[in-house]
Amino acid sequence: MVLDPPLASPIVGRLVVIGVGLIGSSILHAARARGLAGTRVAYDASPAVRERVLALGLADLVAATPEQAVRDADIVILCVPVGAMGAVAKEIGPHLKQGAIVSDVGSVKGAVLSALRAHLPEGVHIIPGHPVAGTEYSGPDSGFATLFKNRWSILTPPEGADPAAVAKLVELWSAMGANVETMTADHHDLVLAITSHVPHLIAYNIVGTAADLETVTQSEVIKYSAGGFRDFTRIAASDPTMWRDVFLNNREAVLEVLGRFTEDLIALQRSIRWAEGDKLFDLFTRTRAIRRSIIEIGQETAAPDFGRAHD
Amino acid sequence: MVLDPPLASPIVGRLVVIGVGLIGSSILHAARARGLAGTRVAYDASPAVRERVLALGLADLVAATPEQAVRDADIVILCVPVGAMGAVAKEIGPHLKQGAIVSDVGSVKGAVLSALRAHLPEGVHIIPGHPVAGTEYSGPDSGFATLFKNRWSILTPPEGADPAAVAKLVELWSAMGANVETMTADHHDLVLAITSHVPHLIAYNIVGTAADLETVTQSEVIKYSAGGFRDFTRIAASDPTMWRDVFLNNREAVLEVLGRFTEDLIALQRSIRWAEGDKLFDLFTRTRAIRRSIIEIGQETAAPDFGRAHD
Repeated sequence: MVLDPPLASPIVGRLVVIGVGLIGSSILHAARARGLAGTRVAYDASPAVRERVLALGLADLVAATPEQAVRDADIVILCVPVGAMGAVAKEIGPHLKQGAIVSDVGSVKGAVLSALRAHLPEGVHIIPGHPVAGTEYSGPDSGFATLFKNRWSILTPPEGADPAAVAKLVELWSAMGANVETMTADHHDLVLAITSHVPHLIAYNIVGTAADLETVTQSEVIKYSAGGFRDFTRIAASDPTMWRDVFLNNREAVLEVLGRFTEDLIALQRSIRWAEGDKLFDLFTRTRAIRRSIIEIGQETAAPDFGRAHD
Repeated sequence: MVLDPPLASPIVGRLVVIGVGLIGSSILHAARARGLAGTRVAYDASPAVRERVLALGLADLVAATPEQAVRDADIVILCVPVGAMGAVAKEIGPHLKQGAIVSDVGSVKGAVLSALRAHLPEGVHIIPGHPVAGTEYSGPDSGFATLFKNRWSILTPPEGADPAAVAKLVELWSAMGANVETMTADHHDLVLAITSHVPHLIAYNIVGTAADLETVTQSEVIKYSAGGFRDFTRIAASDPTMWRDVFLNNREAVLEVLGRFTEDLIALQRSIRWAEGDKLFDLFTRTRAIRRSIIEIGQETAAPDFGRAHD
């Protein structure tokens, strides 16, 4: 999978990425590969990460402080954990020029919108966003230019948002290969609770349950993981800080979906206890169709075992 | 990944596979590739599958009935759903020669041992087995010779089993590239409950919960599945009959592990409700180590996103 060739002229003059982990570094990679910005500026709270950004050539300018990073910025994308958005917004707010666009990539949108609104001045366009893409790896070395290619990027412009600012972000994400959709922050948070947050929680939980069993050793769990368990460990290896913040900041939607999940699981448990084979068979047949649809629209591979090496 | 070259002489004279799905066809592929059997005999209850076995050249002989298949067999491997083991054993029992070895590949071992013991005559060696390997695909076309390579195959010989018969099966599975371990049927059923059965149940359940939400459309679930949900759909696309039988036949161990899972999940839910970020962070950090171990022992790929295509 490759990106289109570089553009004849950049989409944005000065593009600033605050926080250079998996997503931040992938944005910088894609922007470099396609010539999307006149100037790419990066900042990260960690000096070691800032050095790595320089070494990798991801940015034209690496700033020593968030204030310096955002001066004259046309678009600022905050790529920090959801829980850190408010503090960063507070730091950069006074230094943003009028008409600057501030967006983000957090997995929760309602809480981020509130945090940004509390700290950013009038005249700055707040357009929160969330690219639904990622891997289980984190840090500045984990990014790559095609991460967003053929993935969905969701924007959640608040009521009254400037259409031109929204269009600019749509253009930017499209140029990185993403399909863009807009929706309200509340709906985003509910959709992501079921497609991402609760799946992560369940994965973390089953891996924890397995580690704590007294009757089955941890080495047995690891040895026989090919029976299905290992599929869960991938997303249970995701960044702990990021995911702690997701659950703390999307509490209501997560608890709502989790309630449904548990209710369904208890019903399934009851079917097993009472040997209701037909009910089990019906569910197990229904779920196959959903995977087929995900493969059909190109969000998943049809290769057996995710294409893990067998041959 | 490739198998070793063919053996100079076969391990077994007449090898019979009853049931030619993913596992049965993979055994036949591996036996053909490495010359493990003097004669490969296959039977499947479906005439269409029997024709497919002939067309694929998987067996030297395709039998019209189970009785005909097992005549003069040295090793019979039952590759049918766990719930069908008893009926097949009843059919073949009277036609087995003295000293024949009967094994299976079912994901549950206690129930299979009971079913085989109830129907097979004295003088036949019953050595149940379970290769911990598979993909989400089923049917005679889904098998391949390297499915068992570098995977674990578990044998659960009952007390007093003939050591020579056990050794013969160990030799056969090793020649197919598997690592072989022996344990009791009860312990197997508990280990697999956590490493395979409950993970499958949870995957089926979350996919079902997602499909039933009124507030999020099914097309949204499919579109944004790259956020984590799609990882669960792979094992939730596994064969419904096989999995129904697993849950009906490993009820006690599944309910026990499921109880632990739910208990842990409710505690996690409570941590989210009360904003106990430290507890979440601790769990999310602990689970990373388990994936690392699974990758280290070669049961999983370290490629981001399971190596799904990004570039």
